[in-house]
Amino acid sequence: MSGRWTVGVDFGGTNTKIGLVAPSGRLGPSRVIRSSALRGPRAFVDAVSSAVDDLARSVGARPARLRGLAVGAPGPVDAARGIVHTCVNVPGWREVPLQRLFERRLGCRCRVDNDANVVTLGEWRLGAGRGARHLVCLTLGTGVGGGIICDGRLLRGAAGSAGEIGHMVVQAGGPRCGCGRRGCLEALVGTTAILALGRRALRQGAPRLRHIMEGRGGGRLAPRWIGQAARAGDRRAQAVWAEIGRRLGLGLANVVNILSPERIILAGGIANNWSSFGPAMRRTLRAEAMCTPGRAVRVVRAALGDEAGILGAAVLVWETGRGET
Amino acid sequence: MSGRWTVGVDFGGTNTKIGLVAPSGRLGPSRVIRSSALRGPRAFVDAVSSAVDDLARSVGARPARLRGLAVGAPGPVDAARGIVHTCVNVPGWREVPLQRLFERRLGCRCRVDNDANVVTLGEWRLGAGRGARHLVCLTLGTGVGGGIICDGRLLRGAAGSAGEIGHMVVQAGGPRCGCGRRGCLEALVGTTAILALGRRALRQGAPRLRHIMEGRGGGRLAPRWIGQAARAGDRRAQAVWAEIGRRLGLGLANVVNILSPERIILAGGIANNWSSFGPAMRRTLRAEAMCTPGRAVRVVRAALGDEAGILGAAVLVWETGRGET
Repeated sequence: MSGRWTVGVDFGGTNTKIGLVAPSGRLGPSRVIRSSALRGPRAFVDAVSSAVDDLARSVGARPARLRGLAVGAPGPVDAARGIVHTCVNVPGWREVPLQRLFERRLGCRCRVDNDANVVTLGEWRLGAGRGARHLVCLTLGTGVGGGIICDGRLLRGAAGSAGEIGHMVVQAGGPRCGCGRRGCLEALVGTTAILALGRRALRQGAPRLRHIMEGRGGGRLAPRWIGQAARAGDRRAQAVWAEIGRRLGLGLANVVNILSPERIILAGGIANNWSSFGPAMRRTLRAEAMCTPGRAVRVVRAALGDEAGILGAAVLVWETGRGET
Repeated sequence: MSGRWTVGVDFGGTNTKIGLVAPSGRLGPSRVIRSSALRGPRAFVDAVSSAVDDLARSVGARPARLRGLAVGAPGPVDAARGIVHTCVNVPGWREVPLQRLFERRLGCRCRVDNDANVVTLGEWRLGAGRGARHLVCLTLGTGVGGGIICDGRLLRGAAGSAGEIGHMVVQAGGPRCGCGRRGCLEALVGTTAILALGRRALRQGAPRLRHIMEGRGGGRLAPRWIGQAARAGDRRAQAVWAEIGRRLGLGLANVVNILSPERIILAGGIANNWSSFGPAMRRTLRAEAMCTPGRAVRVVRAALGDEAGILGAAVLVWETGRGET
């Protein structure tokens, strides 16, 4: 049992990554397929299963002898029953019994969860969260997802969907969020908010940012160009990240006051700008969190990078075996 | 063991209530002493212990034969070590090892926790939260406290102080809170906020409210007069509660999105105005919570009333025996 491979599937809006994970947590052979090339759930299950067959063969294993497979999906999931309610940015997915479809096709144990929960499990067991009993992980990108470990267990709550920290309103009546509400943390620190601040910086004159965007960026604004401009000394680009840091610090203070985690992990592409938003984030967190839980928390960067989705899915299979999730 | 009495102590800013609780959860003989008459922790321990001696004698028991004693204290507590960090509105309390002081004096097992956690435990085991595995309790008054039951356990978090839902910022830059921050839920729905809305209503002309306040209220505005005026048909008083309901609904939506509880219990004096703020609260919660966790939650009124603090303290003793908290 303990020597067998586990399959982690990181189902994203653009790409789906499939990898074999050793019991040690080491990533073995892996493959990437374009999600957009697959029309609907059945094509997805077929393509992923074929990739699993190939990967298993490459290490001399049969799929039915795998320890299990788990998928982190980009949308709300009923993890207990393995059903994907919907997928953000991927059409054709509604109430898909993905767990059952994979189990039938592969003959091994399968699990499905929300992508942010999967990343949280991965970082907790194999990454920046090792050893913590109370932990919160935020995935910062176009969406802002969250996962919560309470007392050494992933918190699912009554509906199986706990952890939507990105849809905590921190500025009532604030900017419109993709979810329809106003002033969610996602609307304040997600990619859309960063781009809005970046455009304002450009209007006010941000020469370094304009230069980078028009050169490497081909004229298109993206958080990474704002990050590069900030690191290259563009004051207005730096001010964008300071504002994002303040907003994020306020959101984290709420998380600390409510949950009192010992560690908060920041994952996702936006977290790469840590050096630019980190100082303002820490300052605001210190000022806004209550003393006792504020002193007890450390905010750290995720450690698993692009592999978090695959590794976390493998952890989901293992935790199931331990009756933990 | 199971036939023995437990002592619950509800330590409040004005009064301290001490009661014996039967294993069934029934409240036995009890006593009230004025907290303000006691100068500091030692006088508190002496007065409460004397009351416990008397109460125990009245049922024919010796204090050392009691099953235990627990105190719900009005401020942040290190529950693991039984230390009261500070008490809100009660001078002379700083880092008081209350658990040890009581254990020495009474010779039975003692526990100390924050008052909101104690009310949460009481409602969970004996009141409106019975049978729930995921539950949030809010105490609405001058302060807004919170307690969280996650997966059948009281959530304490890394610092032992989780559950400060009243100090979740929902309106960044909003009204100043007693804690120094701006836009906390407490600053939006606590007594101070209700009185501010009430004064505005009076300025705009609220004849029924003015009449009640100047009659029964002796000229002093209080939430109960605004409640009575609303129930008597005063439109502006009704608008006060509708606004409180909207703000509360927004805060509860955050709680639902983050924690996905199956039940939310509203306790504390302000909850007596349920009929006035309930409809707006439910409407806003439905609009602002995410679909899946929003459908899975029920918001209910606390069931234990003024006895919640004493009964909850007894539950804290019992849960300790079960290794749960």
